[in-house]
Amino acid sequence: MHYKLALIGFGNVARALARLFIRKHDLLKQQGITFSFTGISTGSHGFAVNPNGLDIQKALELVESGKDISSLNNSQFPIPDSLAVIRHSSADVMFENSPVNTQTGQPALDHIRTALNLGMHAITANKGPVVHGYRELTALAKSKGKCFGFESTVLGGAPVFSVYREAFPLAELTSIKGIFNATTNVILTLMENGEAYDDAVKYAQSIGLAETDPTNDVDGWDAAIKVAALVTVLMDTPMTPQQVNPTGIRGITPEMIAKAKAEGKRYKLVCSAEKVGDKVEASVAPQLVDSTSPLYGMMNSSTGVTFRTDVILDYSITLSEKPGMKGGPVETAYGLFADFVNAVKK
Amino acid sequence: MHYKLALIGFGNVARALARLFIRKHDLLKQQGITFSFTGISTGSHGFAVNPNGLDIQKALELVESGKDISSLNNSQFPIPDSLAVIRHSSADVMFENSPVNTQTGQPALDHIRTALNLGMHAITANKGPVVHGYRELTALAKSKGKCFGFESTVLGGAPVFSVYREAFPLAELTSIKGIFNATTNVILTLMENGEAYDDAVKYAQSIGLAETDPTNDVDGWDAAIKVAALVTVLMDTPMTPQQVNPTGIRGITPEMIAKAKAEGKRYKLVCSAEKVGDKVEASVAPQLVDSTSPLYGMMNSSTGVTFRTDVILDYSITLSEKPGMKGGPVETAYGLFADFVNAVKK
Repeated sequence: MHYKLALIGFGNVARALARLFIRKHDLLKQQGITFSFTGISTGSHGFAVNPNGLDIQKALELVESGKDISSLNNSQFPIPDSLAVIRHSSADVMFENSPVNTQTGQPALDHIRTALNLGMHAITANKGPVVHGYRELTALAKSKGKCFGFESTVLGGAPVFSVYREAFPLAELTSIKGIFNATTNVILTLMENGEAYDDAVKYAQSIGLAETDPTNDVDGWDAAIKVAALVTVLMDTPMTPQQVNPTGIRGITPEMIAKAKAEGKRYKLVCSAEKVGDKVEASVAPQLVDSTSPLYGMMNSSTGVTFRTDVILDYSITLSEKPGMKGGPVETAYGLFADFVNAVKK
Repeated sequence: MHYKLALIGFGNVARALARLFIRKHDLLKQQGITFSFTGISTGSHGFAVNPNGLDIQKALELVESGKDISSLNNSQFPIPDSLAVIRHSSADVMFENSPVNTQTGQPALDHIRTALNLGMHAITANKGPVVHGYRELTALAKSKGKCFGFESTVLGGAPVFSVYREAFPLAELTSIKGIFNATTNVILTLMENGEAYDDAVKYAQSIGLAETDPTNDVDGWDAAIKVAALVTVLMDTPMTPQQVNPTGIRGITPEMIAKAKAEGKRYKLVCSAEKVGDKVEASVAPQLVDSTSPLYGMMNSSTGVTFRTDVILDYSITLSEKPGMKGGPVETAYGLFADFVNAVKK
């Protein structure tokens, strides 16, 4: 089977995904799967559609040297925006990697609706449409016999949703706990080693982890939208990041960290959600953890989640990152790739 | 669909499985699944077959009060052994929980062959048939359109095999590392707290973790057969525990542990397997780990595994047990139950 792929958003993750497809070309072929890229939408380097297949290497080169990709466009229709790329790409699979909108999930929601309505699988690394459209998009995908995939939204591409779905049949999830934001964990690790908050933020920015405006990370919104996504999907209880109402790490002073260290403890930005009767109580807030906690050992950009169920007590998944060995976009790209393989295998 | 179940082996795990089926009765029914137990084989309390369904509560009571279950037998055929139970149970699914035979995998191998040949799904918590018959039994199951399930063999019932199989499509596994034996981890934890080796072994026995003869655990054979099972299945490289050739923990003295503790380190019985060219190098041996290792924080009966792949760097699964909250047989039983649900859903 040949699959035509559209990339909506062509940042670090989408480009890593394109490279991963190229690297796995032979392995996919052994499974009877071939592919071509037929549509690319970038944030500030234009749009290109070619239903016969775009030169993906050229597209990567152009964008990475700061150039526009419109020269690769070969569509007979005008392509002024992402929706036009989706509509005219003839794609079988649409990868949605536009910037996260915590408040509304747009424009990702519309991209995914459009793709599913056109009979494409829709796969995203964007948490927005999960918390703002999970039930609608899952129902729409089902009605079209397609997949809505979002494995890469939570633990940086490491499998979480598929693990719970495939490996915990008929289990009852009673609580979720973890560290979901790598940036704040790096900052807290550096502060424990004596660095000032501002320097720690600068370091996180320098390694490509934190954005120029670190608000989304340090105020807990990235963690909150991940908690909301897990609760929405795995506890079947719609939740928004606003409902999680996070507390970030700005209030943690070097003095507090030094005191904790002297007591053998650490501050972590702890995410949690717990079923209480019919409701789910969720929070994101800095907490002191001691060495008996599985969160204590998660340093630097490591992240992880612990599931407690009625049948398996504490089952933890950890993605450990070592300095100099960070997977970053490649790992997130793999989450998208895994969704693709699982979608086309069904 | 109604499923007839045969239980070969009726020890702690199999009895916890029977209770789990009873507890999940309504949830299964919602999925259109009903069940009855039509054959039970015990180690020393006889055999019972009734193709119309055995009184499972009665069977549990009899065995747990030390009585024979033969009074429940209602077969028109003589039932002198486990193979006769399998043959005359009319079961759709056979659960194999006979004692592990590290050297040959028998008699579990024959139980599973017989069940698969009769068109049953065969599900086991027994590591023997995995390391001594994985390829044969998987091929046989496939030829019959049935499943050979063994999720509960490695991490005490916590999902490992299904996680890798379902959530890591087309990934290349380069190494496996972990702590696979709970008994030795409890012993090492207690010794770090100043207990003598013999007292630690006695404690592990008192909580039902170590057997009367602790050789299999403390000499590393239980860990070695788990390494061999993971390598055989996930690295597609047949391996026996003999090839792993484990070193156990008997050589670890209180002095060594005290010295390690003073240096901020710990001894752990570390299991590892690594792809080196076309070969796999595997080992089980006590190793000093420091606080940067994900193994450092695994105390008491916690166990865990870290996968390193070409796409996701270090992905760890940890099953944390807290004193007084040990899942034990229930968790292993859940591994069998999960295999059942996944088998009948296919």
